[in-house]
Amino acid sequence: MTSTIDPKIIGQPPKRRRHVRTLTGYTAERDETGKEKWPIGDEQTWKAGMRGLDTDVPSITKSVVNHVQTSLARQPYNVDALGAYQAAALSVRDNLILNWNETQLHYTRKEPKRAYYLSLEFLMGRTLDNALLNLGLKQQYAEGVNKLGFNLEDILEQERDAALGNGGLGRLAACYLDSSASQELPVWGYGLRYKYGIFQQLIAPDGSQLEAPDPWLENDNPWELPRLDVTYDIRFYGHSERLEGGRAIWSGGQEVVAMAYDTMIPGYATKSTNNLRLWESKPKRGFDLQSFNAGDYERAVESSNSAAAITAVLYPNDHTTFGKELRLKQQYFWTAASLADILRRFKNLDKPINELPDYVAIQLNDTHPTLAIPELMRILVDEEDLPWDKAWNIVTNTFFFTNHTVLPEALEKWGVPLMTSLLPRHMQIIYDIVRVNLLFFLQAVEKKFPGDREKLARMSLIEEGFPQQVRMANLACIGSRKVNGVAELHSELVRITIMKDFVDFYGVSKFANVTNGITPRRWLDQCNPGLSSLISETLKLSKAVFLKDLYKLEGLLKFADDPSFQKKWAVVKQSNKERLAHYVETTLGLKINTQAMFDVQIKRQTLNIMGVIHRYLTIKDMTPAERKKVNPKVVFFAGKAAPGYYIAKLTIRLIVNAARIINADPETKDLLQLYFLPDYSVSLAEVLIPASDISQHISTAGTEASGTSNMKFCLNGGLLVGTVDGANIEIAEEVGENNVFFFGHLTPAVEDLRYQHMYHPIPVEQKCPPLARVLKEVSSGHFGDGAVYEPLLNTIRQNDYYLLTEDFDSYIQALKLVDEAYQDRTEWIKKSIRTTAKMGKFSSDRAIQDYAQEYWNIESTSPK
Amino acid sequence: MTSTIDPKIIGQPPKRRRHVRTLTGYTAERDETGKEKWPIGDEQTWKAGMRGLDTDVPSITKSVVNHVQTSLARQPYNVDALGAYQAAALSVRDNLILNWNETQLHYTRKEPKRAYYLSLEFLMGRTLDNALLNLGLKQQYAEGVNKLGFNLEDILEQERDAALGNGGLGRLAACYLDSSASQELPVWGYGLRYKYGIFQQLIAPDGSQLEAPDPWLENDNPWELPRLDVTYDIRFYGHSERLEGGRAIWSGGQEVVAMAYDTMIPGYATKSTNNLRLWESKPKRGFDLQSFNAGDYERAVESSNSAAAITAVLYPNDHTTFGKELRLKQQYFWTAASLADILRRFKNLDKPINELPDYVAIQLNDTHPTLAIPELMRILVDEEDLPWDKAWNIVTNTFFFTNHTVLPEALEKWGVPLMTSLLPRHMQIIYDIVRVNLLFFLQAVEKKFPGDREKLARMSLIEEGFPQQVRMANLACIGSRKVNGVAELHSELVRITIMKDFVDFYGVSKFANVTNGITPRRWLDQCNPGLSSLISETLKLSKAVFLKDLYKLEGLLKFADDPSFQKKWAVVKQSNKERLAHYVETTLGLKINTQAMFDVQIKRQTLNIMGVIHRYLTIKDMTPAERKKVNPKVVFFAGKAAPGYYIAKLTIRLIVNAARIINADPETKDLLQLYFLPDYSVSLAEVLIPASDISQHISTAGTEASGTSNMKFCLNGGLLVGTVDGANIEIAEEVGENNVFFFGHLTPAVEDLRYQHMYHPIPVEQKCPPLARVLKEVSSGHFGDGAVYEPLLNTIRQNDYYLLTEDFDSYIQALKLVDEAYQDRTEWIKKSIRTTAKMGKFSSDRAIQDYAQEYWNIESTSPK
Ligand SMILES: Cc1ncc(COP(=O)(O)O)c(C=O)c1O
Ligand SMILES: Cc1ncc(COP(=O)(O)O)c(C=O)c1O
Repeated sequence: MTSTIDPKIIGQPPKRRRHVRTLTGYTAERDETGKEKWPIGDEQTWKAGMRGLDTDVPSITKSVVNHVQTSLARQPYNVDALGAYQAAALSVRDNLILNWNETQLHYTRKEPKRAYYLSLEFLMGRTLDNALLNLGLKQQYAEGVNKLGFNLEDILEQERDAALGNGGLGRLAACYLDSSASQELPVWGYGLRYKYGIFQQLIAPDGSQLEAPDPWLENDNPWELPRLDVTYDIRFYGHSERLEGGRAIWSGGQEVVAMAYDTMIPGYATKSTNNLRLWESKPKRGFDLQSFNAGDYERAVESSNSAAAITAVLYPNDHTTFGKELRLKQQYFWTAASLADILRRFKNLDKPINELPDYVAIQLNDTHPTLAIPELMRILVDEEDLPWDKAWNIVTNTFFFTNHTVLPEALEKWGVPLMTSLLPRHMQIIYDIVRVNLLFFLQAVEKKFPGDREKLARMSLIEEGFPQQVRMANLACIGSRKVNGVAELHSELVRITIMKDFVDFYGVSKFANVTNGITPRRWLDQCNPGLSSLISETLKLSKAVFLKDLYKLEGLLKFADDPSFQKKWAVVKQSNKERLAHYVETTLGLKINTQAMFDVQIKRQTLNIMGVIHRYLTIKDMTPAERKKVNPKVVFFAGKAAPGYYIAKLTIRLIVNAARIINADPETKDLLQLYFLPDYSVSLAEVLIPASDISQHISTAGTEASGTSNMKFCLNGGLLVGTVDGANIEIAEEVGENNVFFFGHLTPAVEDLRYQHMYHPIPVEQKCPPLARVLKEVSSGHFGDGAVYEPLLNTIRQNDYYLLTEDFDSYIQALKLVDEAYQDRTEWIKKSIRTTAKMGKFSSDRAIQDYAQEYWNIESTSPK
Repeated sequence: MTSTIDPKIIGQPPKRRRHVRTLTGYTAERDETGKEKWPIGDEQTWKAGMRGLDTDVPSITKSVVNHVQTSLARQPYNVDALGAYQAAALSVRDNLILNWNETQLHYTRKEPKRAYYLSLEFLMGRTLDNALLNLGLKQQYAEGVNKLGFNLEDILEQERDAALGNGGLGRLAACYLDSSASQELPVWGYGLRYKYGIFQQLIAPDGSQLEAPDPWLENDNPWELPRLDVTYDIRFYGHSERLEGGRAIWSGGQEVVAMAYDTMIPGYATKSTNNLRLWESKPKRGFDLQSFNAGDYERAVESSNSAAAITAVLYPNDHTTFGKELRLKQQYFWTAASLADILRRFKNLDKPINELPDYVAIQLNDTHPTLAIPELMRILVDEEDLPWDKAWNIVTNTFFFTNHTVLPEALEKWGVPLMTSLLPRHMQIIYDIVRVNLLFFLQAVEKKFPGDREKLARMSLIEEGFPQQVRMANLACIGSRKVNGVAELHSELVRITIMKDFVDFYGVSKFANVTNGITPRRWLDQCNPGLSSLISETLKLSKAVFLKDLYKLEGLLKFADDPSFQKKWAVVKQSNKERLAHYVETTLGLKINTQAMFDVQIKRQTLNIMGVIHRYLTIKDMTPAERKKVNPKVVFFAGKAAPGYYIAKLTIRLIVNAARIINADPETKDLLQLYFLPDYSVSLAEVLIPASDISQHISTAGTEASGTSNMKFCLNGGLLVGTVDGANIEIAEEVGENNVFFFGHLTPAVEDLRYQHMYHPIPVEQKCPPLARVLKEVSSGHFGDGAVYEPLLNTIRQNDYYLLTEDFDSYIQALKLVDEAYQDRTEWIKKSIRTTAKMGKFSSDRAIQDYAQEYWNIESTSPK
C-alpha cells in the first residue's frame, strides 16, 4: 500500500526510451482531409487573444508601462533607470519571443538540416541595444522611453554583461550566432548557464589583480526563457557492465538533471530568431543513488546542492584546470544534455537513425565538447542497438572540429583514472575506438612507415605516463568529418605540427581553414554609430546593405582621398576618443588628453609595457627641445589574467605601478600617459575599440591562432601594430602591408631561436641593451619594490620563451614608424579609411557561410 | 589610478547610514501649491499605458493567451495542463499585483500603525484557488480556461504546495495573514525563502519513512516578486569593540546579502492585498572579508556559495537542530533583515525614533525570532546613539511574544560559545540586559523572596552548564510588552509553569491568551465548496457574509432537526468521502469502502495505531454473528515524522505494515481498513478533512498547546475524539460536551502519574491487559519483524511517558461510544451540524482581531 519507492530502481537507466509528448517542437495534427486541426480549445478565443509585435510608439509605451505595473510591481513613483531598463527589456523580450516562436515553428514544419554549435563559452555582452538594432526598433524605443521620462543611453547602461566566456573563443561563438540568425541559417548554440561568469577584476592598492565572483544573474536576466519541461537526466560515476555485441549498461553513481534555458538570438533585419540553449544543473527530484545511500536527510540536501554546483562557475582560462574533476563534469554534463536534446529533436522527424548526418551537423568549438563523440557512440550502440561500425560511421559524419591552438601546453588531456571513475562507459568506448578504429588504422600506418614507433605513439588516443592521459584533440580529430583552424597560418600549423601524422594518413582534404570573423552589427554599427552613419551617407547605401554585406565597404576606397570625407572621418574618430575619455573620467575619475594618439592593447603583454617604459626613459633623457618633437601618446591596457597565471598578474601589477609613476611625472605627463582599465568586458571593448588610433597585436609569431580584436580595431579605422601572426597576416593581405606596422621574427624562425636561447644563451645586456636598461630600471625599484617583479624579469633574462630580446629592437623601430606616420595626419586618415574599407572578408557572415557550405551543408530558410 | 579596492574597508560597518532613495514606499512629491507632482515623464503617456484588473472572460482569455505566447514562449500546439496553470497563474498574479500596488500606496499615504508578524515558517499551501476565491474571479477564470480547452480543476492540481513550514505553527501564520488582509489590517509577514521546503515523505518497501529534498521553486513560483532593490547586508562572526557609553562597533567576519521576495496576500472580497516578505541569502557582490582573506578565486566562489546556503533548507521540526550553527544563522539573518526593513520604512515617516512603538508592533511567533530583541537594541544603541534605557523602553514596547510550548525539551536554548562566535555584539548586549535590566530586577526578586536561589537561577537569561546556554524564552519574555499562549489551557500552563516567576514579578496582566484560529476561506469554502453552498442556501446568506463573520454559522442550529437539511448535509459529507476515495485510488491505486465511517488522524500517534490493532484483534475474536454488528470503519493516518525522531518513524512503519496485514485479511477487511497517506501537506489536508466522520486529537493532556486541525475537522462537520487538552477544551465548550468524545486523564494528574511510573512502575500486563495483548502481537511478528518495533514498544513498557497504559481503557471506551453513536445516523448528523454551527469562535478573523486590539493597537484601513 501507499506510494512506495523501490530503492532498487534508483540509479538504473530508464528501461526503454518512452515517447513522451514534450512541450516543444510540435505542430498541428491534421484531420482526415489533411487540414490542420486546431490543437486545443476554441480556435476563435485563442486567436482573438493572440498578440503581435509592438512596433509603434504608443504600443511600446503601453507595453513598458504594463511591465512596470505588473512584472516589476511598481508605481510610477518608484521607477529609476534600472527599473526602466528592466521594463523596456521585458517589452523587447516579448517582441523577440514572438519572432522566436515563429522561427522555431517554421523550422519544425520545414525540417531543414540543422547545425549545432557546441561551445563551453558564449561571451554575449549586453543584449538590449543589439536586440533593438536587429529588430529595427531602436528609434521607436528611444522615443517611447523618452516620453516616459528616460533616456535610452542611460537605460542601456543598466544592463549587466553576460560574460560567459574568457575571451576570443567565447566572443567568436557569440558573433557566429548573430551571423547565423542574420543569414536565416538554422543554427542553434548549446552551452552552459553558469551562475558566475568570468570573474570581476579589481585592482588592489599595491596594483595587483584581485578576482571577485560575478553573480551576473542576480539582477534577473530578461533574455532567457526557463524551459521547465526540457530536462534530461545525466549520470556520473557508477559502473558499466559489458553485454554481448559491444553494448553495455551503465548504471548507479550520481544522477543530476540538466534543465534548458533558451536565449533568443535575433537576426539583423529579419524575423529569423535563433536559439542559444544553455543548461543548468539541478538535483533530481526525490533521490539519486548517492543521496539515497547517504541515508539521512541532511546528506540528501547536501547532495542536491552538489548537483547544482556543476554549472556554478565558468572556469577561468587557466591550464591548471586540466585534471579538475568538476571541469570534466561540466564538459560531460553539457555534451550529454545537448546530444540528448539534439537526438530528441531528430527523432521527432521519424527518420531512420542512419540519416542523422543528413539532418544534423555538430560543430565542436575546441576540444571542450569532445566527449560528444564517445557519448553519441554510447547512445547509438547501447540505446539504439546499432552495430559499432554503423554507429562510428554516423558519428564521423556528424561532427566537425575546430582547433584553436597548437601550443602543446594548451592541448586538453584528461587522466585515465579520473575518466574511468567519472565516465566508466566512455572510457570503455575510447578503448574500443582505439581497438576497433585506430588499431586497424595504426596497423596501416605501421605498414606505410615501418618501425616509426614515435609516430604511432603520437597518434594514439592514450598518452603514456603517470597517469595515462586521453588526448582530446586526437579523439576530436578521428571522430570528426573535418578539422579546421581559425586563420590561414594557424590552419597550416595544425597541418604541419600537431595533426601532421593524421594528415599523412587521412590526406590533407580533411584539414581546412575558416578564418575567424566578427559581426559588423555589434562591432561597427552598435559600437560606432557615428562611423556607420558616415559610411551610409557617403556610400549612399542604407546601413542594412553594408551591415549584411561588409564587402560593400570597399566603396569607401574611392573617397579616401576626398578631403571633406577625411575631415568627417577624423571628426568621428575624435568623438569616439572623447567618449572613451568621458568613460574614464566618470568611472576612474581621471582626465585624459584626447589630442594625443590613442594606443590600445586589450591584452597585457610584457613586450608592450617594456616598450612604454622604454619610451618613458627615452623622453626623460631628452632635452626640452627634443621633447617638443615627441608625438604625445596615451597608452591603454585592459585585460584579465587567469587567477593562476602568476607572471601575467605581475605584468598587470607593473603596468598599474608604472602608470602611477609616469602619469605623475611633470616632465613627461603631457607626452605619455598610461592607463590600465580594469575589468575588461565586451561593453568596455565597445567604447575602447572605436577610440583607438593604433592597436597592438604583438604575439610571438605562431602563438596567436587568429585574434579577432585585430579585426574589430581595423573595422573601426584603427591601424595595426603587429607581429606576422594569426589573422594579422590576412588583414595585411587585405589592407596592404603599407597600412600595417609589422615587426618581429617569423614563425619558422621561432623554434630555432628558442633552441638557441635554451642551449646558447646570451645575456640580455649583450643581446638587447635598450631592453636591459628597462629591466634594470624596473628591478631597481623605479616602479615600486623591484624585488616583486624579479620573477617576471627573469622570464626575459632566462630562456626568454616569448623572444622579447629578439623582437624588442624591431618593435621599437615599428613604434617609431607609427610616430612618424602619425605626423602626417592626412596620410594617416587615408590609411585608416583604407583599412576599414578592406575589412569585408572579416565579417562573421563570411565565416559562417564557409561553415554552412563547406562543412555543415545547411541552407538558409526564411520564416516568412 | 584605476578602480582600486581598499581591503581595509572590507568588513567595516557603513560609516553613516546614508539616505538612499530606494524604490519602494514612495509617493508623489508636491509642488508649491500642495498639488501632487507627476514623478517622471509625460503624465498622459503613463496614464494611457496603465492597465486595470482583468475581470471579464474575454480579457481573462486574452491575458492567459498572451502569457502563453510571451511569458512561456509557447505555441498553442505546445500547451499542457502545467503550461495552462502557469499562464493562468501569471494572469491572476497580474491582478493581484495591481491590488497589491494600490494597498501599499494607500498605507504609505495613510501612515497607519503597522504590525509585523515574524515567523520562521509560513505553510501557505497552494495559492491559485485561494487567490481566485478572494478576488471573486473563480467563475470567470473557470469559464475562460474552459474556452481555451482546459478545466480549472485540472489546472489547480498542477500547483506545487509552498511548504515552508513543519505544521501548525507555520499554517497558523498563513491563516493569520489571510485574516489580516481580509479585515484590511496593515499587517506584513516576514520569513525566509527556503530553497527546499519541508522534506518530501516517501515510504520504502519495508514501510519506513524516507526523506527527500523538496526543491519547490524548481517550477518557477508565479506568486513571488523578486525585489532586486530591497537588500540588506548582514554580518556574522567578526569582533565587537566596546566604546564609551555602552556603544560598540561590530566589524569583520562574514557579510552576506539579504534580498526580499514579496508574496501577495489578497484579502477576501476586498482590494486589500498585504505582503509576505521572504528573505533569500546571497553573496555580497565583490568580496566579503572571509573570501578576500582566502585570497584565491576558487575560495571566493566557495564563500559565495556558502552565503547562499543560509536560506537553503527549512529545518524539520527536530529538537536535535538546537545548537546547529546554520539554524542560528538563519534566525539572525532573518530577524536582522526584517528589522532593517521595518526601520527603513519607519524612518521614511520622519518621526522621532522614540515614536517607533506608536507606528510599529512586532509579533514574535515562538522564540525563533527572539534575536530581534538584542538586534533592535544594537541598532538603537550603536547606530542611533540612544542611551540604553531609552532603547530598552522602545524595545519592550515594540515586541509581543507568542509562546507555543511549555514542554521543557522544546524550549530553545543556544550555547554561549556559539553565540559569542557568531554574534559577538549580541552576546554583549544579552550580558548587558542581564546586568542592567535583569540584575536590578533580580535584586527586587531577592528582596521579595529572600534566599530563593533556585528562583533566581530559573529567571536568569543564562542557564549554567557546559556550555552555558542562553534561554530564548526568558529573553523573549523580558523583552516583550506582552506574552501569550495559544489556547486557554496552554496560556494558563504558561503562567503557572515556565513563566511562573515572571508572573510573580511583572504581574499577571503581561500574560494573556489568544486562542488559535483558522481561516474559513480556505478551510470551509475552498476545501468544501459543497458545504459552503449548502450553508449559504440554507441560511439565505451570501457566502461573503459567513466567510467574513463565522459566528453567522450559529444560524444552522435551528435547521439541525430539519430532516431535509440533514439529508443534504449527509449528501455533502458522502461526496467528500467519495472525493477522498477517488484521490486514494488515483494516487495509490487502492479502493476504499466509502460506506464505512471515516476516522482520520493527521498525526501518527502510537495510541491510535494500538487502538486500531486492538480493534482488529477484537474483530478477529468475534463470531460471524458478532461481526455483523460491527460498525465498518476506515482509519486514515497521515503526517511526517522528523527525520531524527526515531520512535515516531517506527510508529509510521508499524502503521504501514499493520495496514498491509489488516487490509489483506479476508475476515476483517470489510469491517476495518487502514491507510497511511504519504507526504501529508496542506493540499492533502484539503481533501482529507472534509471527508472525516470523526477525527482524533489525542495528545497526552497538557502536551498539545492548541491544535488547529481539530478546528478544521469540526468546521467541516467531523466529530472529535480527544483528550482534555489544548483547544479541544474550548471546542467542547462551544459545541457542548455531548457532541465530542472525551477520554483520558486531565492535565493536573499527568505529572503525578509520570512520577508514579518512574518510581513505582507496574507492568503493562497488570496495568492494562488489552494494551499488553496488542504489544504482544506486535512483538511476536504479526505485523512484520517484531524485533524492529521493540524500541517503540519499550517506550510503553518502560516509563510510558505518554501514559498510554493509563489512558488506553478510556480511549477504547470512547471509541465504543463513537461506534454506538454512529449507529443512530440521524443523531450523528445532528451532532455534526451542531458542531459546524458553533465554530464561529475559531475563525482566525477573531484571533487576529484579538491581536490587533489587545496587543498591537492597529486599525483596519481600506485602500478604497
Ligand atoms: C513551435 C516550436 N518549435 C520548436 C521549438 C524548439 O524546441 P525543441 O527543438 O526543443 O523541440 C519550440 C520551443 O518551444 C517551439 O515552441
Ligand atoms: C507604492 C509602494 N508603497 C510601499 C511599498 C512597500 O515597500 P516598503 O515598505 O519596503 O517601502 C511598495 C513596494 O514596492 C510600493 O510600491
